[in-house]
Amino acid sequence: MRAQLDSWNEGASKRAIVDFVAKVTADGPAFVPPADRIAVFDNDGTLWCEQPVIQLAQVLQRWQEMAQQNPRLRDQQPWKAAVEKDWAWFRTAITKHYRGDESDMPALSKGLLSAFEGLTTDDFAARAAAFFRTESHPTLKRLYRDCGYAPMVELLRFLESRGFTNYIVSGGGRDFIRQIAGDIYGIPQERIIGSSTSVAFREQGDGGDLLHQARLDVFDDGAAKPARIWSRIGKRPIFAAGNSNGDIPMLQFANAPPRPALRLLVMHDDAAREFDYVSGAERSLALAKQYGWTVVSMKNDWKTVFA
Amino acid sequence: MRAQLDSWNEGASKRAIVDFVAKVTADGPAFVPPADRIAVFDNDGTLWCEQPVIQLAQVLQRWQEMAQQNPRLRDQQPWKAAVEKDWAWFRTAITKHYRGDESDMPALSKGLLSAFEGLTTDDFAARAAAFFRTESHPTLKRLYRDCGYAPMVELLRFLESRGFTNYIVSGGGRDFIRQIAGDIYGIPQERIIGSSTSVAFREQGDGGDLLHQARLDVFDDGAAKPARIWSRIGKRPIFAAGNSNGDIPMLQFANAPPRPALRLLVMHDDAAREFDYVSGAERSLALAKQYGWTVVSMKNDWKTVFA
Repeated sequence: MRAQLDSWNEGASKRAIVDFVAKVTADGPAFVPPADRIAVFDNDGTLWCEQPVIQLAQVLQRWQEMAQQNPRLRDQQPWKAAVEKDWAWFRTAITKHYRGDESDMPALSKGLLSAFEGLTTDDFAARAAAFFRTESHPTLKRLYRDCGYAPMVELLRFLESRGFTNYIVSGGGRDFIRQIAGDIYGIPQERIIGSSTSVAFREQGDGGDLLHQARLDVFDDGAAKPARIWSRIGKRPIFAAGNSNGDIPMLQFANAPPRPALRLLVMHDDAAREFDYVSGAERSLALAKQYGWTVVSMKNDWKTVFA
Repeated sequence: MRAQLDSWNEGASKRAIVDFVAKVTADGPAFVPPADRIAVFDNDGTLWCEQPVIQLAQVLQRWQEMAQQNPRLRDQQPWKAAVEKDWAWFRTAITKHYRGDESDMPALSKGLLSAFEGLTTDDFAARAAAFFRTESHPTLKRLYRDCGYAPMVELLRFLESRGFTNYIVSGGGRDFIRQIAGDIYGIPQERIIGSSTSVAFREQGDGGDLLHQARLDVFDDGAAKPARIWSRIGKRPIFAAGNSNGDIPMLQFANAPPRPALRLLVMHDDAAREFDYVSGAERSLALAKQYGWTVVSMKNDWKTVFA
């Protein structure tokens, strides 16, 4: 039996998804061949929670480790906030970024870029896998690996069973997400598009390794998202889901009339089961209203949030 | 019935391929699960001929078009060589590059980077598709779309039928190869890794386009190949095929003992049916000898070269 959207309440959002999928998979003017049924999903705040951003917990661990080895780092941001477990500093930095205020970005960037400098891609993968085996969300009190939204995982299966191919297109770290996306979302490593530091090849005899550099390769957010989608997939998606201003270009890119497209925006309005915030999503919600994108209310559209 | 290597002569090369594939697909210590059977192929000189580099013909057309519109360009390289149909200038530039002499590269780069500036990715795709419908190789007198090596296409099918997933990892243009790789090689657009100029998103109302910029995004050659493989696939390949010094890091990256790996180098030694040259492949051939990579003689190992 094909996957259904059982954990979605009946309503405009569910209907929009079901109708769209029916339209592009049935014979008719809106039919899209399976090879072109590309669906792209932001990760943080769209497929799993982002308060706080989960990857920061991994980086925090690493910064604490670095500050232990090098005490001078304890007076510098972001190592200072890491040692003092000052989550608010990070939350504020991200919120400011989405509002266009980049004042905390130089310190944050330096810390992020240098956190895993010199590690091989194999080493990094092992560290990320270990993180997901044991670490838990600070307020939701569940393993990070259990922080995926059940209705969205169901949506991935629903699309897949109708011939869609799902990709993640995240501002988060590509090599971090790769270690968990298979388990949570059933999306394989080659379909994870995300941010990354540069990796450089070190030749050694008949082999060699890739080493993480303290240099940004790509910050996969905003206008970088459609560019990376093109680089990786070579096609425009017909289904794009996000939750913030950083997802706007990706959602716009999916629209290539007369071919049909569905754009979906997850709205965090559920303080009881998850979080309630619009910060960083103001413009995307305004555009959704203006252009008729599908806005998903976590509170009203989802029967459950977590599995 | 599963694909066989019928257009390969019996000999050490064919045996090495068949034995390797048997080993990694059969129960035993060398077994590799299908999801990890990643095979990567260089394109120019490995899957199709590169004398001259096919994409240059497309760029030449474009440069001639540009020089017609702007006569001042006729005295500058590479527009001058394009207008005069001076193929030797380009051949020399490439050969010099592979020998470490970059003296022609600034002019060539400027010409390459600006050739399609301002075109949308959709426009570029349409131009590339049109090129392949009509254009022919200058000396082989066959359509470029018929310049793929039949034994290599057979090898792609052979690997595929044993659960491998094939990727192209080319120094050539990603968006150019994407318009022909499905037809010649049966490799879809999302599995083409190659060079590209940057593309920038231009928002327009509820949609938008990606426009080619006169700026290099990535030159996918040498040490860039393993980095791009990691970025795109997130795994090391177990099968890597190339034909030049620019493929060495990719072949080294495939080697991660104790997991088995096959590295294959196509040697151009067939003046009668294709071309005979080692220029640009000297170091790769030396390493192949030193480390026991599989060297394929076009003359001796292939019954036919072109279909």
